[in-house]
This record gives sequence, C-alpha cells and structure tokens, in this order.
Amino acid sequence: MIEQDQIEAQERSDPLARKRHEFDLPANTVYLDGNSLGCLPIAARERAREVVETQWGRDLIKSWNKHNWIDLPVQIGEKIARLIGAAPGQTICCDSTSVNLFKLLSVALKMQSERCIILSVQDNFPSDLYMLEGLRHQLGSDAVQIKLCAEEEIESAMHEKVAVLMLTQVNFRTGRLLDMQRLTERAHALGILVIWDLAHSAGVLPIELDGCHVDFAVGCGYKYLNGGPGAPAFAYVAKRHHQHLHQPLSGWMGHAAPFEFDAQYAPAKNITQLLVGTPPVISMSVLDAALEVYRDVDIKQLRDKAYGLSELFRTLVEQSPYLRDLQLLSPPQPQQRGAQLAYRHPEAYAICQALIDHGVVADFRAPDLLRLGFSPLPLRYIDISTSVTVLTEIMRNERWREPQYATRSKVT
Amino acid sequence: MIEQDQIEAQERSDPLARKRHEFDLPANTVYLDGNSLGCLPIAARERAREVVETQWGRDLIKSWNKHNWIDLPVQIGEKIARLIGAAPGQTICCDSTSVNLFKLLSVALKMQSERCIILSVQDNFPSDLYMLEGLRHQLGSDAVQIKLCAEEEIESAMHEKVAVLMLTQVNFRTGRLLDMQRLTERAHALGILVIWDLAHSAGVLPIELDGCHVDFAVGCGYKYLNGGPGAPAFAYVAKRHHQHLHQPLSGWMGHAAPFEFDAQYAPAKNITQLLVGTPPVISMSVLDAALEVYRDVDIKQLRDKAYGLSELFRTLVEQSPYLRDLQLLSPPQPQQRGAQLAYRHPEAYAICQALIDHGVVADFRAPDLLRLGFSPLPLRYIDISTSVTVLTEIMRNERWREPQYATRSKVT
Repeated sequence: MIEQDQIEAQERSDPLARKRHEFDLPANTVYLDGNSLGCLPIAARERAREVVETQWGRDLIKSWNKHNWIDLPVQIGEKIARLIGAAPGQTICCDSTSVNLFKLLSVALKMQSERCIILSVQDNFPSDLYMLEGLRHQLGSDAVQIKLCAEEEIESAMHEKVAVLMLTQVNFRTGRLLDMQRLTERAHALGILVIWDLAHSAGVLPIELDGCHVDFAVGCGYKYLNGGPGAPAFAYVAKRHHQHLHQPLSGWMGHAAPFEFDAQYAPAKNITQLLVGTPPVISMSVLDAALEVYRDVDIKQLRDKAYGLSELFRTLVEQSPYLRDLQLLSPPQPQQRGAQLAYRHPEAYAICQALIDHGVVADFRAPDLLRLGFSPLPLRYIDISTSVTVLTEIMRNERWREPQYATRSKVT
Repeated sequence: MIEQDQIEAQERSDPLARKRHEFDLPANTVYLDGNSLGCLPIAARERAREVVETQWGRDLIKSWNKHNWIDLPVQIGEKIARLIGAAPGQTICCDSTSVNLFKLLSVALKMQSERCIILSVQDNFPSDLYMLEGLRHQLGSDAVQIKLCAEEEIESAMHEKVAVLMLTQVNFRTGRLLDMQRLTERAHALGILVIWDLAHSAGVLPIELDGCHVDFAVGCGYKYLNGGPGAPAFAYVAKRHHQHLHQPLSGWMGHAAPFEFDAQYAPAKNITQLLVGTPPVISMSVLDAALEVYRDVDIKQLRDKAYGLSELFRTLVEQSPYLRDLQLLSPPQPQQRGAQLAYRHPEAYAICQALIDHGVVADFRAPDLLRLGFSPLPLRYIDISTSVTVLTEIMRNERWREPQYATRSKVT
C-alpha cells in the first residue's frame, strides 16, 4: 500500500523536479496528455514572440541570414539526434511525420529493387498505414504490396521477399515497447530495410538508432518534445544510405546548391536532401526553443521518471476498490512499455470527459480506451496521486454518467 | 516629369492608404521585398501570442475543439478562395507549395492515363521544375516525360500527347503575367489539364480560377498574403475533379472520417483529401489572422495600386540620368506584369546590398537581377520616391563599390 508520505518523499528526491519550472503550465490541471500535445516550455513562448515580433516584424527577409532561419532544419535535427542516439549529420527537421514516411518508404523501396513487400503491424498508427496505401496507389500494387501482421508475429512474418519493415517503437494504444535492437537485427539478417516511427518514444526513452544499426526513422515534434501544436517532424537516415538517397519530393531546399537556382535538380548528398519547400519558420523556431529544455537532461533519468510516474499511477489504481472495472491494456512491467498506460472501460469516453472537467486531462481512443501519458519533465509524483484521487471520486460517484459527458466532440 | 507634389497628391487620394496602419512595419525602411516575405500584420502578431500563450499554453489539447484548430485548413482555404476567384469548397491550406504540387501533379497525371508528358516553361520557378523531376524519378521516365519550352512558345508547344501543363502565372524573375484564360482554354481544347502556381499573383492581382475553368492551382502563404516566414501553402482543385481525386500523400487528415482511426484509408471525397499530417498550427494560425487584412479590400483596387506603385518607380528610374545602366527586364506595360519590376545590371548584387544598407530592401536574383516587389497594402507612393532617391544616390556616388557590398551571404 503506497501512502501519501512515500509519494512526497519520492517527489523530494526527484532529480528532474527542477525542470518543471521551465514550463508555463495551466493552473489546477494535471496534464496526462503530453503524448498527444506536450506542454508549453517558457523558452518556446519567448521565442515565439522573438521570431514574430523582432525577426519577422523588424528584420524581415534579412532574418534568413541574420537569425539563421536557413539553418533551423539542421540545427533542430542535431538537437533531436542527441535524444535518439544518432551521430551528427543524419537527422533533420521537416514537414510532417506522414510526409517524411512517404519520402523514406519511397527511398527504401527503390533501394530494394527486387522486393516489393512492405511489412507492418495491424495496430500501427493508422496514419502510418495510410501512407503505405498512398504509395501503393501511386506505384501500383505490382510495385507495392502491403502485409500487416499482429505485433507478436513480426519476427515470424519476416522473410526474404520483404523489402521494408515499418514499425512504431511504442504502440500508440497499448504503450507496448518493441525491441528495436532485436527486430532490426532480424530484419537485416533477411536483407530487409527498417523504418522506425519514434512518435511515442523520442524524448522520453533512451533510443540508440546508430547502436541498433537502424536504417531510417521518423518522429514527431509535438508530443514528448513539446514543440507546439503540429510542430514540424523529423527524419533520420543512416549515413551509410546517404549515397543511395534520392527521395521523390525533390524540393529546392534539398538541392545540392539551393541558392544557385539551377533549372535542373541535383540531390544533396546528405541528410538535407530530405528538405522540400520553405519550412514553417515560426513553428520551427518554437520547436527549436522547446528542445532547449533537454539541454541538461540525462535521458536515462527521463525514462526512470516516466516509469516511476506510470508505476505510481498503476499501483494506486490497483489499490483502489473503486477502480476495479478499469482493465489495464498496457504491459504491467514498465520496461515493456513507453511512458503511457491504457485502460479499457466500456464508458471510457464519458470517464475521460469527466476527468478533463475535473482538471485531469487524459485522452480517449475509440472504442473504449482511456489513455494516460506521463511526460516526465512537467509532471510531479504528487500530480499522479491527485489524478488517481480525482479518478476514484469520478468512478465512486459515477460522475461520468452526467449527461454533459456523453456527447462526442469533433476531435477526440 | 513627375514632381514630388504630384506624388503627394497620389498618396492623398489612395483609397488603400488606411490599410498601412494594419501592419507593424520596421522604422526607416522602404520594404520592396513583399514578394519574398510579406510584412507583419498586427493581427498576425496578436494571434501568435494568443495561439501560443493561451490556446497552447492554457487550453492545450482541448484547443483542437475549443479554438477550432481542426478547421484552420478549410477556414484559411476559404479566405484565400475569395482572392483567387474560387467558389467555396475548392481551396485548402496545407503543407508547402512544393508538396502540394507533387500531390496535384500525381492526381492530374493519373487522370490522363494515356498521356505522360508534363509541359512547363524553362523559366518557371526552379523549385516547381524540381518537383517534376522528383515525380519522374519516382514513376520512371516511361510514365513521366518533362518538356520545357520558352514562355513565348507555350501555345505552340501544346499538343494532344501532353497530359499536364504546369505554369506560374507571374514569372518570378521578369514579373511577366501569363494569360490564364487563354492558355487554359487552349490546353483544354487539346485535352490537357492545367496546374497554375499563383505564388506571385495571389493577393495582389484579381484571379478568376473558376471563371477560367482552371483545373488545379497552388500558391504560397508568405509572399503577398503576408502569412509569415514559410507560412503554409494552399491548393485548389476544381469541384468537377473531386470525384477523381486520389492523391498519393494519403495522410490521416485527408481521410473521409479522420477521427474514426480506421486501419484502412478511405479518401475524403472533397478538398480536405489534400490534407496529409497534422499541420503546423502556430504558423497556420498566424496566416489565418494575416488574411484578415484582406477582409475589406477590393482586389481591383489592389491591382491598381500595385500598378500605380510600380509605374511610379519605373517612371522615376527612367527620368533619372544616373539610372541609365539599369536595364528593365519586365514588360513596360503594367497590364503585362505582376506587382514587381526587375532590372538587369552587372553589379546587381552589390547594388542590392547597398540599397538594403541604406534602408531600401530589394532583392537580388542571380546572376544579375535587381528585383523590386510592390506590395500594395503596406507601401505608400511616397515610399517609392524615397526608394528611387536612395537608388539614385547609390548609383551617382557609386556607393555599391564599397567592399562590404561585395561578399555574398548564404541566402541571396
């Protein structure tokens, strides 16, 4: 039985507790949705004013040089590289995760001239699977075959006709963490190239892209990286593949000499080739500033705290007689999951709405999942006990039955 | 001979003069580069604070509903639609111009199953031509053939094997305006689909996409639309083509039911199908607010003022004995050009740098072009005479020879 004084002790000994003060957080809220949209770092707020009011407003076009707008994609890429175990020169910030997946899927498939199967899991992000379908629509089903398997069957589904394995490291529903090292190794043994989506792992778990010899990766700027709503995404291409890199969205920023304005496209022979058109500089600057929060953070401490927070939540739920109907869908061992928990309940939607209304922001995934993200920088251990207290009160008094919690809003 | 008092009279009778006060403009600057990056509207500055500090900071994930983030792409699309002669339901804001071109080129080519030639002009934006090359790289040169012609030869280069004609309405170098109505008609007579890039015309010239029966169009948010650096772009698809629309970058936001999170992609049967991943909400919100400047503007008055400003500049240059070496590359008749002028001079780079240093922001295009954009909302007629006075002084005293103006910066 965990008692409140143990939680307060855990709070006092948290080596990351100081980082909370680098965020501008809403009052009276426990925010457990940092895996959908991270909180606002103070540095990001200040940079937004700076980039709009001074850089754009005063210096206008000169800012491309004076404020180094032109270097943002690479500069942000390198900040993220440190969080995902990538040596310099392999990571870049651009476009959305979906657009980046399209580029890398196209490249990987072209490198595998004799193979046309792309393997992924049924329970991957639907958005990632949609991009596979788009590529198949464009290239035809002779050139692209899609095979989807269950998460437990990935290894057995690999064979020597598979061109590309596309996986998400942490399942967006269950939070289950896949074994990047093992799966990448198995794939390579069969000549399969691997693309990892790090949307729910970058910035919260130690990742070793270089160490695992990963081929390609993509990820998202607005979840644990706290880059702001719809922040630009990132992409990684292992250096050994740069020589084969020729992605189809061949924009001016990916040209070998973008400021020559040659009539002919010549692909840059490095990671900048993934750039397409002029990037959204305001959103990108905000992400750049947000990443400063990570400058002095040990990623292992991040993971330990994410586990600490989610284990505290899980244990408190387990302890409460009023929360027995919540069925844990996530792996019970923290080492087998990312920084989130998902519970099944037939009334998950209404429960989620009631929680939000009582100051605990969680999220709902159809049809019946209550999902809770434990972003380790802004959250405190005492926030977790608060959130379980609120949840208990909602379930004990069946507050979720109140009619205002039944109506679904446009975005869920 | 135009005299200063005539210019002041022109200034006093300018029906758009009041609009200047809706911009936050740098002091002591005449900004003639609104065709590269528009100035900061005050409403955009305020919205940037609002979207970052309140919407993101306070309301976090709830903002997708509460502040209608989810509707931004359509809402912005409709604001732009009014400026480009498009009835509702055909214009949307998303991604970059280049990414949007890729989508529309793919769609148009697929609609033309028996044809594979894409025709464009040699002097189109290099970035647009690069996207053609990317598509050819991906689909192979049997499926995509690129044919480039001179601007004067567009009509004669069209024939019945051409699938798609891709043109930019206003040439980014010379400012020459193509005849959208005539060229679209000729193309259609030969069964060719037409994609127009409106980057240098939207927001400054009356455009009649529906009236000219245009098939597809793209354009840019950060030039005359003043949407901020790298603002998201827009795309138009004529309603009659929506039934055939199936673009390859099939992201979750283009799904017929994006919040169902189905494992299978089902393309939306309307313009929202062009959406891909989660958009950069901060940059998009800023563009949305920037477009408010146009709420009470008559587009014909905009064009008239753009012509008035550029004709004043051209005439003052012609009158000055010190500016004889500047060779006008743009059509001398305002009706034949967009809102810009380009002059050739072997020392254009140094002249441009000297101008900037003396408070007149122009831009340089390699190898020898001085380009001046006349954004009609923030500019005054008296700014034009100031800029020609500064230019005259630089040329008369050969200030451009000063060594600091010789070194090229990274971005030109």
